[in-house]
Amino acid sequence: MLIDKLIDRITELKSPIVVGLDPRLEQIPSHIKESGFKEFGKTPYAAAKIIYRYNREVIDQIYDLVPAVKPQIALYEQYGSHGIDCYIKTITYAKSKGLLVIGDVKRGDIASSAEAYSDGHIGRVGIEGNSQEVFYEDFITVSPYLGGDSVEPFLDDSNKYGKGIFVLVKTSNPGSADIQDETLASGIPMYQHIGKLVSKWGAGLIGKSGYSTVGAVVGATHPEIGRELRALMPHTFFLVPGYGAQGGTAKNLKGMLNKDGLGIIVNNSRGITGAYLLNEYKSYGEKGHAQAARAAVTDMKRELMS
Amino acid sequence: MLIDKLIDRITELKSPIVVGLDPRLEQIPSHIKESGFKEFGKTPYAAAKIIYRYNREVIDQIYDLVPAVKPQIALYEQYGSHGIDCYIKTITYAKSKGLLVIGDVKRGDIASSAEAYSDGHIGRVGIEGNSQEVFYEDFITVSPYLGGDSVEPFLDDSNKYGKGIFVLVKTSNPGSADIQDETLASGIPMYQHIGKLVSKWGAGLIGKSGYSTVGAVVGATHPEIGRELRALMPHTFFLVPGYGAQGGTAKNLKGMLNKDGLGIIVNNSRGITGAYLLNEYKSYGEKGHAQAARAAVTDMKRELMS
Repeated sequence: MLIDKLIDRITELKSPIVVGLDPRLEQIPSHIKESGFKEFGKTPYAAAKIIYRYNREVIDQIYDLVPAVKPQIALYEQYGSHGIDCYIKTITYAKSKGLLVIGDVKRGDIASSAEAYSDGHIGRVGIEGNSQEVFYEDFITVSPYLGGDSVEPFLDDSNKYGKGIFVLVKTSNPGSADIQDETLASGIPMYQHIGKLVSKWGAGLIGKSGYSTVGAVVGATHPEIGRELRALMPHTFFLVPGYGAQGGTAKNLKGMLNKDGLGIIVNNSRGITGAYLLNEYKSYGEKGHAQAARAAVTDMKRELMS
Repeated sequence: MLIDKLIDRITELKSPIVVGLDPRLEQIPSHIKESGFKEFGKTPYAAAKIIYRYNREVIDQIYDLVPAVKPQIALYEQYGSHGIDCYIKTITYAKSKGLLVIGDVKRGDIASSAEAYSDGHIGRVGIEGNSQEVFYEDFITVSPYLGGDSVEPFLDDSNKYGKGIFVLVKTSNPGSADIQDETLASGIPMYQHIGKLVSKWGAGLIGKSGYSTVGAVVGATHPEIGRELRALMPHTFFLVPGYGAQGGTAKNLKGMLNKDGLGIIVNNSRGITGAYLLNEYKSYGEKGHAQAARAAVTDMKRELMS
């Protein structure tokens, strides 16, 4: 199971960190932007070219420190086909450097559409007898709102192609309370109900590590809920967003660990790729943005390990 | 509000029908496929070219009969950037024929990512002071799983740019029961809880028609639930999938209508674009696939009106 490989890399690197690649133009150093816009105009094509160059510079500085990167597809998709091209190129570049890639796509649709998403992102797309990979992610995030039959195609392809998914259970944003925290008639909150479903969906896909290749997204911003879900889902690996910019701290994460000291991989996006904009790292300057990202990863590793 | 325009078109055409453009290669006539694969190989690029030609042929036959089309982005996204290019070209072609376009994207993410989705799909994307439309949909579908703050960017852009959304409330698939049907401690099912949230989110965006430009997705496969939700959400327009291939019938829809005889637009995908494969329409033959689609729309109109 692919989850075993992710866990091995976390252990080898002593780094339960995934770097979020959520490129925003306002965060990209001006020397990269200027040359891109000069060459290609103020166009989605230029934005995609600029983002790809920026991402490569970041990846070159962090690939030996972390097991994985997580591009957020919304930030690419907004530029249309050029953005999607850049998203895929970013993924293949990251993989060429030995990184695992978690595509943060949060797709969720009825089975016949979910199959198409799954084929494209983690499976193979059939074209007149030919079949080929298109997006190349290792893992993707999946929304559970449409229920079991909507998740099945992703389970099938995870099994068939050695891939994995992380299903949204309790997201990091304040609004997650609106639905995910609702108490059910059975007395448990919705996020526990979904946690149980995710455990069930992943039960047939448990690797040598004891963890399922069907993981859960659990926000760092809810430490008590993280603790509850850990107790409920001992075989589920957690992808933990919300660290740093959204307010999650290392202390928040303790309850999400299993007795083996494992069980989580923590995402940080703006706190790493935008580090050179923070007071702490601004001495690196714009041109040193990727070195600042490297320093921020090293510091985050230390924080998490303490 | 854009919802008023949709309702005007439904009334003018006596046609509460949206044609789902969910292209599957196995459903596309061989003369279109053969020439495409011959020219461009068995590639995602060829698939995108073929689908675009197929969609255009369908649109040319149905644009004067229905107010809107609904492309399902999963079926395009699976072909990567070429698929997205085809999705956008399909949208702009449909709009050039006077159709409204509902992008079935079911996006849902934390606010900072939802903003990017919203900018790209129904708003404008800013690039170094320039701002431009990218996807050009009129409406999109949105998943509510991440709660109010994740939906807000779509509300803002609906207001600012005269667009609209349909939020998933009760989807047409059997697995929708897993989460959407759970009874809450307050005694109501989750889909009612979400229905109330959707009414609240849309309350500030009600048009002259009395309907909000924030609609709801309610599957044709659940007639009793449709009736409950109609009573609960008098100002919410319903986008109704699940008619035809998924088992929903005209009788199922009655309870979803308001006293004004309005309140719904019914989607049909395979039953229209794949009509030439059904016994009923197979006399049209492969080359008459688009004429078969036209006949199927005409028949569906009659069924709904009876």
